Amino acid sequence: MLAVTILGNNSAVPAHGRHPTSQVIQTYDHKFLVDCGEGTQMQMSAYKVRPGKINQIFISHLHGDHYFGLIGLLTSLGLNNRKNEMNIYSPGGLKEIIELQFNVANAHLPYPIHFHVLNEEKIVFEDKKIEIECFRVNHRIECWGFIFREKKNMRRLNPSAIAKHEVPISCYEMLQEGKDYISPGNKIIKNEDLTKEGPHSFSYAFCADTGYFENIICKIKNVDLLYHESTYLDALEEKAVARFHSTAKQAATVAKKANVKKLLLGHFSSMYEDVSDFQKEASEVFENTECALEGVCYLA
Amino acid sequence: MLAVTILGNNSAVPAHGRHPTSQVIQTYDHKFLVDCGEGTQMQMSAYKVRPGKINQIFISHLHGDHYFGLIGLLTSLGLNNRKNEMNIYSPGGLKEIIELQFNVANAHLPYPIHFHVLNEEKIVFEDKKIEIECFRVNHRIECWGFIFREKKNMRRLNPSAIAKHEVPISCYEMLQEGKDYISPGNKIIKNEDLTKEGPHSFSYAFCADTGYFENIICKIKNVDLLYHESTYLDALEEKAVARFHSTAKQAATVAKKANVKKLLLGHFSSMYEDVSDFQKEASEVFENTECALEGVCYLA
Repeated sequence: MLAVTILGNNSAVPAHGRHPTSQVIQTYDHKFLVDCGEGTQMQMSAYKVRPGKINQIFISHLHGDHYFGLIGLLTSLGLNNRKNEMNIYSPGGLKEIIELQFNVANAHLPYPIHFHVLNEEKIVFEDKKIEIECFRVNHRIECWGFIFREKKNMRRLNPSAIAKHEVPISCYEMLQEGKDYISPGNKIIKNEDLTKEGPHSFSYAFCADTGYFENIICKIKNVDLLYHESTYLDALEEKAVARFHSTAKQAATVAKKANVKKLLLGHFSSMYEDVSDFQKEASEVFENTECALEGVCYLA
Repeated sequence: MLAVTILGNNSAVPAHGRHPTSQVIQTYDHKFLVDCGEGTQMQMSAYKVRPGKINQIFISHLHGDHYFGLIGLLTSLGLNNRKNEMNIYSPGGLKEIIELQFNVANAHLPYPIHFHVLNEEKIVFEDKKIEIECFRVNHRIECWGFIFREKKNMRRLNPSAIAKHEVPISCYEMLQEGKDYISPGNKIIKNEDLTKEGPHSFSYAFCADTGYFENIICKIKNVDLLYHESTYLDALEEKAVARFHSTAKQAATVAKKANVKKLLLGHFSSMYEDVSDFQKEASEVFENTECALEGVCYLA
């Protein structure tokens, strides 16, 4: 299970009580931060998200509404005497910005930061249970989306089939991993005859800031939860195109073509005080749509 | 009259609903911003302080809790299509930090910024009615305080004395400016015999982050309102000294020695959830003391 807590759902500037982009993605073992607009640390405090356990931060691109809160968060973690290393994944240039600010303050963090520059679509983080892959989106400057995928769960042994074929206990693990069983009489028994599908592995795709971009559809195919920006409503599609942003309708079209389970809309323009029309517009194309609301935790 | 609106009164990190340092000082003609911690633009929005008319920003020093909100504010002003030039007064290094961040975003502001590096105690801004002087305080890195002084108001003519000495109208302006009158018979009549004191000229001193520092007393002598940091209570005086900060008692001692009219305490450590003890401690030394509360407008 993945839990996505929205800390900011507005674009460009804070407005109408909404904040610039930031989200926390939690698994049983990890807490990942995606983007870090100004005020993210205050939003964490408001929604009781403790930042101490975050060891990986993903910054989609270097427009300020996606990272101006990072220096403050890193500073506060230092003042709180953090010791664990922090890993930051972003386009090139961020390291220089952060280090310059610590240098002028003659400040020395009590924990190390490792900056990882994104430069190709690949898995940027993984452990036994999860992998995180970055992919390019289509924005005015270099910009990356991120997919969080639980690794495929082990298959479940089918006790009656195992008894029938007299499979020895020493082969159970192999079966759980999906391999076939070869009996003492050299008969191959297919894995699917001895096991059942394991529990579902959840996935979440964060599509950052992007114009309508069909290239991402194959990347995010079948994810359980898709966060796609929708800065504007369809009436302002031209503006969306010119600014490399999407409309609610376009976000829904991507969700539909990618066959995702659920769509979350966000990055709303400050032009809109009320965002309920985004959900209405998108759900005409893709029904299972919600507006990402700050402080709310969405499950995938 | 000067009106000081507190946007942030906490030190180092946001905590207990308190924000890092920022204040707006308003006169009839101007709106000045002093320091700009993270979230300042949100605080402006919360307290209905419109930033469009701010043309001068004073940054006391380059610790993050005093300027991490600046880049976001400047960006938002640009997105709001500001055209007027902005003047920023700060220690050296800020220009590079700001420009680097605009460069990586390939962002171009629609208004010019002039960076003024503080390097000596002097008047950094003045017009006919007000002058703003910077002065050094004693902090871990280069740090500046600012005094806002209304210029001396013209003296008021004393009608009966003018009639008695038959002063011609052509000399009134000279008298208002404080000069003596020389009668046709070459008799010198002292200005104070012909005029009265003009209206009071108000003054406000912002003392930034500083350890107890007697050098500032002569600078801020007799100001109407003094903002002096008090990061700690007296029980933690050693900590205050080690960190180049002050206690409430020390702030009050400065206020008393400088003979100011009123003391405002701020920059409270996050160690203190309740700040009422600061007022109690300081008022034992200097009675007319208040804690600077966010959203409150204090007059000088």
